[in-house]
Amino acid sequence: MKNFQFYNPTKIIFGKDTVAELATLVPQQARVLILFGGASAEKNGTLAEVRAALGQRSVREFGGIEPNPSYETLMRAVAMAQAEHVDYLLAVGGGSVIDGTKFVAAAAVFDGDAWEIARSGGTKVRKALAFGAVLTLPATGSEMNNGAVVTHKASQDKLAFRSPLLFPQFSVLDPTKTFTLPARQVANGLVDAFVHTTEQYLTYPVQALAQDRFAESLLQTLVEIAPRALAAPDDYATRANLMWTATLALNGLIGAGVPQDWATHMIGHELTALYDIDHARTLAIVLPSLLKVQREQKRAKLLQYGERVWGIRDGSEEERLDAAVDATRAFFERLGVPTRLSAYGLGAQAVEAVLAQLAKHGMTRLGEHGDIDLARSRRILEEAL
Amino acid sequence: MKNFQFYNPTKIIFGKDTVAELATLVPQQARVLILFGGASAEKNGTLAEVRAALGQRSVREFGGIEPNPSYETLMRAVAMAQAEHVDYLLAVGGGSVIDGTKFVAAAAVFDGDAWEIARSGGTKVRKALAFGAVLTLPATGSEMNNGAVVTHKASQDKLAFRSPLLFPQFSVLDPTKTFTLPARQVANGLVDAFVHTTEQYLTYPVQALAQDRFAESLLQTLVEIAPRALAAPDDYATRANLMWTATLALNGLIGAGVPQDWATHMIGHELTALYDIDHARTLAIVLPSLLKVQREQKRAKLLQYGERVWGIRDGSEEERLDAAVDATRAFFERLGVPTRLSAYGLGAQAVEAVLAQLAKHGMTRLGEHGDIDLARSRRILEEAL
Repeated sequence: MKNFQFYNPTKIIFGKDTVAELATLVPQQARVLILFGGASAEKNGTLAEVRAALGQRSVREFGGIEPNPSYETLMRAVAMAQAEHVDYLLAVGGGSVIDGTKFVAAAAVFDGDAWEIARSGGTKVRKALAFGAVLTLPATGSEMNNGAVVTHKASQDKLAFRSPLLFPQFSVLDPTKTFTLPARQVANGLVDAFVHTTEQYLTYPVQALAQDRFAESLLQTLVEIAPRALAAPDDYATRANLMWTATLALNGLIGAGVPQDWATHMIGHELTALYDIDHARTLAIVLPSLLKVQREQKRAKLLQYGERVWGIRDGSEEERLDAAVDATRAFFERLGVPTRLSAYGLGAQAVEAVLAQLAKHGMTRLGEHGDIDLARSRRILEEAL
Repeated sequence: MKNFQFYNPTKIIFGKDTVAELATLVPQQARVLILFGGASAEKNGTLAEVRAALGQRSVREFGGIEPNPSYETLMRAVAMAQAEHVDYLLAVGGGSVIDGTKFVAAAAVFDGDAWEIARSGGTKVRKALAFGAVLTLPATGSEMNNGAVVTHKASQDKLAFRSPLLFPQFSVLDPTKTFTLPARQVANGLVDAFVHTTEQYLTYPVQALAQDRFAESLLQTLVEIAPRALAAPDDYATRANLMWTATLALNGLIGAGVPQDWATHMIGHELTALYDIDHARTLAIVLPSLLKVQREQKRAKLLQYGERVWGIRDGSEEERLDAAVDATRAFFERLGVPTRLSAYGLGAQAVEAVLAQLAKHGMTRLGEHGDIDLARSRRILEEAL
């Protein structure tokens, strides 16, 4: 096991009818800015519940935070927060809204060019507004971590940042808020949580027994609930398991003391920035091909993954490795999430474009061994054609 | 899944050579009281490392906190903390020292009779000194939770309390600090972590899939590492897994959203208070017998436990239930931890004495269903003779 630090002070309020808890979670004297995405938060009644719970507090609202939240949009929220002397942010939505809120929390009190927050990976964040979240879309884990990803539309840069100052103070997780989600977003959430887990698990063994088993627990659970998560939108138990599993997949726990990969995310980010493919869908394109290309480096963990997650015990080692990668690809495809660039009409030109962006962003030593250079990324992308 | 709240702000610093991190973890201006147990912390050099890391800070020391820390001893530490105007506590030791430090943290600034802290279960705690911990004995999980147990020697009362104000700010977990532990304490730690897990797992199913699998992960890991944990004291990987697993067993995570039992602990506490049997050893006495007596209430989870933790898949349902209970008892016995009262020279008289204490402490509706009344506790204790 590697040395590690674990720290996560976000308070989770989980369950049915918990939005009303905002009445005590948000400070009484707070000047609140509610941030949200599209019309669904209004339509499904969540915003009305949030407003009711906030009662007599001073409240402003900023809607329209898009999937893969853009610097351009978020800076309008920053201007509003500053103009209105807001001192508390409340994200109502999924990972994009919460990620965007983290950027606003840091940018509203940042000295200098706010894009430096993203460009520095968060190291330049010295202070931030306090904020909480009401989660409506289980997927990214942003509700219980201190990281975020924002996109500079003008430059097509999609950058990740994190800071100890950017944990939500609390997150309200009410699984019933997911009942009205489109199936596509649920499938994306399943894939996102799955790949968050594999990024922290499918590397090489370091005798971190509980971490391995926790990761396998999350993968097994996602596989178990996936069919009902798609087929029975108002099955509370299934949605509750999806929501909590997605949170646990990226709250620091399973990654404590183990090597991490994240190459799938880094390559996927470029696909989203260039072609506007949903984040999770880019992961489904990259991961199976990456596992194939990195088969030797990941051999021991791939075999363990095949056996413990997919029950693959028969056949030669090579056959079991193949089966583990195939099972991963087939899982995504069963969810209706394509695993090939061709499904998006993309070909060899896209490979070149992604490689150019990876080069531009210095993504030339990816993976747990730092051995995914541009040549290796090319092989992965070509494998995904 | 049940509604739940999860909050755990303790920062974990885990790994080799991490005691030196105290230099930045403890505030520079703090007036520190170090609390520790017996001579081992001095002998094995941990205290010297701690002193060195604290550097020029004002430091006092209070040694002699015993296993099952007593109110009487702790009140002497409280007097010292008050007389020396200490504003930061640092526990160096195992669960008893950390539990004791929690009591001192609350009692040093408590208005009124400090025993009310324990008698109220912690609800009367309004403020507390800040504190951190250096863990030397993996077992109780006290290093990453807000609960503690203290014993009033004069009255033989052993009471648990908790408060949101009693999380350690940080805990340093260096597995090498466990290399010098006596085998008996390692065996106790394995049992303690195991039973912490079963108290939050062996109840009834609520479709909490990740929580179940996390609990099973910890149990599987404890079973896997137990032989080497005893046979190879300086096997770093084994001790690291023991340390982190024991912490995860009682930091709120696996108990979030699921029913909890804790009857084994409540009955066990009386055995410790009356007969001074090590805490973990009382759990090993009570749990197998409790599982036998509560077999019907726990049927579904016992079968799941048998299959996933012990690989019990063959035979009738009744046979598999028997096998799951037997495997639990055999595991403890293999660790050298007896599972019968008779091993301590106790018989029918002890049963009566424990029942009298349970009645005195109002422990008449124990277990996840509140159905373990005194008659049921009698059956459990008689089963353990």
